[in-house]
Amino acid sequence: MAKIAFIGLGNMGGPMAANLVKKGHEVTGFDLSEVALNQLVAQGGKVAKSALEVAKGAEVVVSMLPSGKHVADLYTVEFMAQLQPHAVLIDSSTIDAVTARSVAALAVAQGHAMIDAPVSGGTAGAQAGTLTFIVGGAAGDFDRAKPILEGMGQNIFYAGESGAGQVAKICNNMLLAIHMIGTSEAINLGVRHGLDPKVLSEIMQKSSGRNWSLEVYNPYPGVAENTPASKGYAGGFAVDLMTKDLGLAAEASLDTKSSTPLGSTALNLYRMWSEAGNGKFDFSSIIKFLNQQ
Amino acid sequence: MAKIAFIGLGNMGGPMAANLVKKGHEVTGFDLSEVALNQLVAQGGKVAKSALEVAKGAEVVVSMLPSGKHVADLYTVEFMAQLQPHAVLIDSSTIDAVTARSVAALAVAQGHAMIDAPVSGGTAGAQAGTLTFIVGGAAGDFDRAKPILEGMGQNIFYAGESGAGQVAKICNNMLLAIHMIGTSEAINLGVRHGLDPKVLSEIMQKSSGRNWSLEVYNPYPGVAENTPASKGYAGGFAVDLMTKDLGLAAEASLDTKSSTPLGSTALNLYRMWSEAGNGKFDFSSIIKFLNQQ
Amino acid sequence: MAKIAFIGLGNMGGPMAANLVKKGHEVTGFDLSEVALNQLVAQGGKVAKSALEVAKGAEVVVSMLPSGKHVADLYTVEFMAQLQPHAVLIDSSTIDAVTARSVAALAVAQGHAMIDAPVSGGTAGAQAGTLTFIVGGAAGDFDRAKPILEGMGQNIFYAGESGAGQVAKICNNMLLAIHMIGTSEAINLGVRHGLDPKVLSEIMQKSSGRNWSLEVYNPYPGVAENTPASKGYAGGFAVDLMTKDLGLAAEASLDTKSSTPLGSTALNLYRMWSEAGNGKFDFSSIIKFLNQQ
Amino acid sequence: MAKIAFIGLGNMGGPMAANLVKKGHEVTGFDLSEVALNQLVAQGGKVAKSALEVAKGAEVVVSMLPSGKHVADLYTVEFMAQLQPHAVLIDSSTIDAVTARSVAALAVAQGHAMIDAPVSGGTAGAQAGTLTFIVGGAAGDFDRAKPILEGMGQNIFYAGESGAGQVAKICNNMLLAIHMIGTSEAINLGVRHGLDPKVLSEIMQKSSGRNWSLEVYNPYPGVAENTPASKGYAGGFAVDLMTKDLGLAAEASLDTKSSTPLGSTALNLYRMWSEAGNGKFDFSSIIKFLNQQ
Repeated sequence: MAKIAFIGLGNMGGPMAANLVKKGHEVTGFDLSEVALNQLVAQGGKVAKSALEVAKGAEVVVSMLPSGKHVADLYTVEFMAQLQPHAVLIDSSTIDAVTARSVAALAVAQGHAMIDAPVSGGTAGAQAGTLTFIVGGAAGDFDRAKPILEGMGQNIFYAGESGAGQVAKICNNMLLAIHMIGTSEAINLGVRHGLDPKVLSEIMQKSSGRNWSLEVYNPYPGVAENTPASKGYAGGFAVDLMTKDLGLAAEASLDTKSSTPLGSTALNLYRMWSEAGNGKFDFSSIIKFLNQQ
Repeated sequence: MAKIAFIGLGNMGGPMAANLVKKGHEVTGFDLSEVALNQLVAQGGKVAKSALEVAKGAEVVVSMLPSGKHVADLYTVEFMAQLQPHAVLIDSSTIDAVTARSVAALAVAQGHAMIDAPVSGGTAGAQAGTLTFIVGGAAGDFDRAKPILEGMGQNIFYAGESGAGQVAKICNNMLLAIHMIGTSEAINLGVRHGLDPKVLSEIMQKSSGRNWSLEVYNPYPGVAENTPASKGYAGGFAVDLMTKDLGLAAEASLDTKSSTPLGSTALNLYRMWSEAGNGKFDFSSIIKFLNQQ
Repeated sequence: MAKIAFIGLGNMGGPMAANLVKKGHEVTGFDLSEVALNQLVAQGGKVAKSALEVAKGAEVVVSMLPSGKHVADLYTVEFMAQLQPHAVLIDSSTIDAVTARSVAALAVAQGHAMIDAPVSGGTAGAQAGTLTFIVGGAAGDFDRAKPILEGMGQNIFYAGESGAGQVAKICNNMLLAIHMIGTSEAINLGVRHGLDPKVLSEIMQKSSGRNWSLEVYNPYPGVAENTPASKGYAGGFAVDLMTKDLGLAAEASLDTKSSTPLGSTALNLYRMWSEAGNGKFDFSSIIKFLNQQ
Repeated sequence: MAKIAFIGLGNMGGPMAANLVKKGHEVTGFDLSEVALNQLVAQGGKVAKSALEVAKGAEVVVSMLPSGKHVADLYTVEFMAQLQPHAVLIDSSTIDAVTARSVAALAVAQGHAMIDAPVSGGTAGAQAGTLTFIVGGAAGDFDRAKPILEGMGQNIFYAGESGAGQVAKICNNMLLAIHMIGTSEAINLGVRHGLDPKVLSEIMQKSSGRNWSLEVYNPYPGVAENTPASKGYAGGFAVDLMTKDLGLAAEASLDTKSSTPLGSTALNLYRMWSEAGNGKFDFSSIIKFLNQQ
C-alpha cells in the first residue's frame, strides 16, 4: 500500500480519493474547499493545509484539477522536492498535451516518474470506481502507476508516450461530439419525415450508422430508458465539459495544423448552445438546438 | 414461387435477379444493356425487350434504378396495367422519398401493393444474397414482399409508411458519412501528435467514440485487414455513391426544413473530394482529403 | 400606357401595383385578401375576382407570389389564353430557377414573352419605387419589360437567359448571408478582445474586410444609426426570408452539384436561429446567435 | 530623424527598412540572412551582427518577424537595456495578441513605449511605402510611433490598447477569407447555372453582395484584369499566409470562447487547400478548390 498525496477533491477527485482510502492506501488530500477536506476525513483520509505539505514524503501523487494552468502551477520543482525520491506522479486532469508533456519532463528531470491519465466515466464512475483511464508516459512508468489506477477505475488504456493520454482522450471526445450531433441530425430528419425515432434508431444501430450515441446514449427523449434524454437532460456529461474538451481538441489541431472540419463545427455548435443557457445540461441536449420547433 | 419482372440488371440488380432465379422464382429481366440481359439468361432467367413487355402478367416487380427520375418514368399507369391484379411492386433503388411516395400512391390507386426497399451491403452483399433491405410501405404490403426480399437479403427492416425506407436509408448513410469523417479527423489528429493509429483506434473503439467506421471499416491504412483503406481504397462503397446519398439527405432536409449542419458539411466535403478526381475510390478515402501531407 | 394584370397584392406586391397606377397604367389586381383588393381600389386600381378574370385582355402580367408552387399554379395555359397575344409576363416572385424556366417555356410556347424578375429592396423599396430588379429572359423580352419595371424600381439588371434572374438573386443573397455572418463573427471576436465595435468596423471597412454588411447594415447595436441593429432588429429583411432564399440557394447547389460549404452552414445557422423564435427579426440579428453571453 | 534598429529584413522587412533610409532615418538592420544584410547596405543602411548590437543606442525599434515565438525571443530585458531610455518599439509582425500584450508590458516595465502594428498591403505595398498599419498600444505611444509608420505606409489606423492592432488585423483577415470563399461559392453557383461570371459579379457588386473580394480581387479568371485570378493565381497574398492568419483568429477565438462557425470552416478549407499543394498560390485560388470539374 502506498503513501498517496491527492490534490483536487472536487466532484471527481473526492470520490476517487475515497476509493483509494478504501483500497487501504494512506491518502492525504488537499483542496481549497474546507467542505471537500472534511469529506475526505470522514471517509478515512488525512488532509493537509497546502500543496507543499501534502507532498511531504509521498510516494505517489494524484491530481485532479480543472485546467492546464492549475496543473502547471502545482507541479513546481519545489513541490517535487517534497516527495520521496522516484515518486510516481499521476495527473488525471483533462488538459492540453503541451502542458502535460512539459510538466512530465520537469518531473523526470527531478528523478520522478510521471504519467498523464485523464479519465472518462463521469462522477458516477468516480464513485463506483469504474472509471476509464487513458494513459500517456513511459511504458515502465505506466506499469508502476497501474495498480494505483486500478484502485479507482476499471479500464486502463496505454496510449503511448507522455501527452498521449491527453491526446487520445480529446480525440475520443471530439469523435463522440461529432457522432452525437450526427445522430441527432439523423433522428430529427427521420422524425420530421414521419418515422418513429425508436424504429429508426434500431435500424441505424443494426446498420452502418451504428455508434455509441445510438447504442447507449440516445439523444431523443423516450427512445431509451435511463438516458439523460429521458430525464430532461439532467445529469450525465455537461455541455460545458464537452465544450471544454472540444476547445482542447481545437488547440491540439492548431498545434499540429490538422484539419478537423466537423470537429470545429461541433465546437462552435456546443459553444453557442452553452451560451444560450444550456451549459449545465447533458451534452445529448444538443439535439434540441437542432430542432427547436 | 412467383412470376417476377426485374428491371435494372446492373452491378447490383444483376446478382439480385440471379439470386431470385436460384430460389426458384420465374424471373424475367429488362435492361438497356445487352450484356446484362445475356448474363441473366446464362443464369437461368428470361429477358424481355421493353419495360412493358417484362411487366406482362407479372405478380411481382423488382426495380433497381439509378435515380428518382428513372423510377418515375418506369412506374406509369400503362406499365402497371400489364401486371397481374394486386401485384407486389418493390423498388430497391435509392431515391428521394417524395418520388417514392408518389409512385407508391399511383400503384395503390391501380390496385397494387408497393413498397420502397432500398438496400445496403454493396455488390458483395448483392452477390452473396446478404443485402440489408430497409422498407417503407403499408405493413400488410411489407408482409407480402418479405419472402421475395429474403431471396436477396439477410436483414429486412420495416421502417414505416411509404417513403420511410428511403428516409431511413439516407438518415443512416448521412450518419455513416459523418462518423467516417469524424473518425478520420480523430485518427489524423492523434497520429500528428505521435500516437499509433491502431492503438488510438482500439482505445476509441472501447470508449464513447465507438462507431461502425472504427469497428469494421477503419479508414487509416494498415490498421485493419481487408478494409478498403488497406487495399488502396479500391472497391467498397464509392465516394460518388456516398455523395449521391448525401444529396438525397440534403433534399430531405430542405423538404422538412431540418437543420443538418454536419450532414451539410459532409456533403460539401465528399463533393469536393469527388471533383478532385476521387469519385471511384471507397468513401473511407476521405481521410486522405483531410491529410494530404 | 399598358393594361396590366397584377397578381399578388401583399406587402411587396401591393405598393408595386400602386406605383404602376401612379405611372398611368391601367392596373387590375387580384389577391385572395379582400383587404388587399380594397387597398388597390383606393389607390386607383381595378380588381378582379379570379386569376382568369384579371388576365382577360391584359397586355402585361406582373406576379408577386410566395413560392414556386404558387407561380406554377398561376401560369397555366388557360390563364395565358386570356391575355392579349404577345403579352409580356413578369414574375417578380423569388422562386427556384427550375420552375422559373419551365413556366417561361410554357409562356413562350403560347406566343408570349416571359421574364423572371425577382427584386431586392424590401417593402421600403417597393413603396418608394426604388426596387432593384434582376432579370432573366431573352434580351428582346427584357427590353419590352424594362419600361414596366422602371415604374416600380430604380436599378434594373439583366442577368442572362430565362432563370438567370432567379439564380443571380439567390447567389447575391447567399453571399450577403455569408458576409453578414462573417462580419458578425469578426466584430464579436474583436469586442471580446476589448476593441470598440465602431473603431473595428471602420478599420475593416477601409481594409480588405470591406463589405455591404459593414458599410450600410452594421449588425452590432449602436455602431450605425438607422440600422435594424440599432432599433432592436425590427423591420428590415426578416430571418425567415433569408432562410427561404438560402433554401433556394441550396436547391440550386443540389441541381448543379455545386459546393457551397459556407452557404450550407449559413442556411443551417439561419434555420436554427429562426426555429429558436427569431424568424420575424431582421437577418442581421444573427450576430446575437453567435454571442448570447 | 531617428536612430532606428530594424530586425527582420525579409520580403516585407527589407523594403520597409529601405523606405525608412530614404526618409532620412539612420537605420541599422539585423537579419540572419547575409543577402538581406547586404541589400540594406546597398540601400544606404547599416547592419549589425546580432540583435543586441543592433539595439545599442537605438531610439526606435521596428521588427518584422514570422511568429510570436520569434518576437518573444527578441524582446528580452537584455535587448531592451541596450536601447536609449524611453525608446519607441514597433512590432509589425502578425502574431497572437497574447504575446503582443506580454511583450509590450515588459517594454513598458523597462520604461519604453511599445505598439503592435501589423501591416496589410503585401510586398508590393512594402516596396511602394503604401502599407496599411493597424496599431494597438497607448494613445500617446501611437502618436510617437506615427511619424515612423508614415515613412513606410499610407493608412495608419489606431485600433485601441496593446494587442488591439493584432486583433483588428486578424478580425479583418478572417472576414476577408470568409467573403472570398463566399464570393467564390456564389460565382461558381451562377456559372454552373449558365450565368456569365462577369455579369453576375457586376450585379452582386452593385447589390447587397458587395464586398472587397468582388470589387478589387475577383477570384474568377478573366473577370477582372490584373487580379491574381487572371494571372494563374501567382503573386498576391499566399494561401499559406491566409492559413496562418486564420490560425491566429482561431487562437483568438479559443482565448475568448468566441463562436466563429464560418471562420473555423474557412481555416479548415484553406488548410486542406494548402496541404493539397497550393500553399504558394494566391488565396483567391480557393475558388478552384470549390470547383475542380
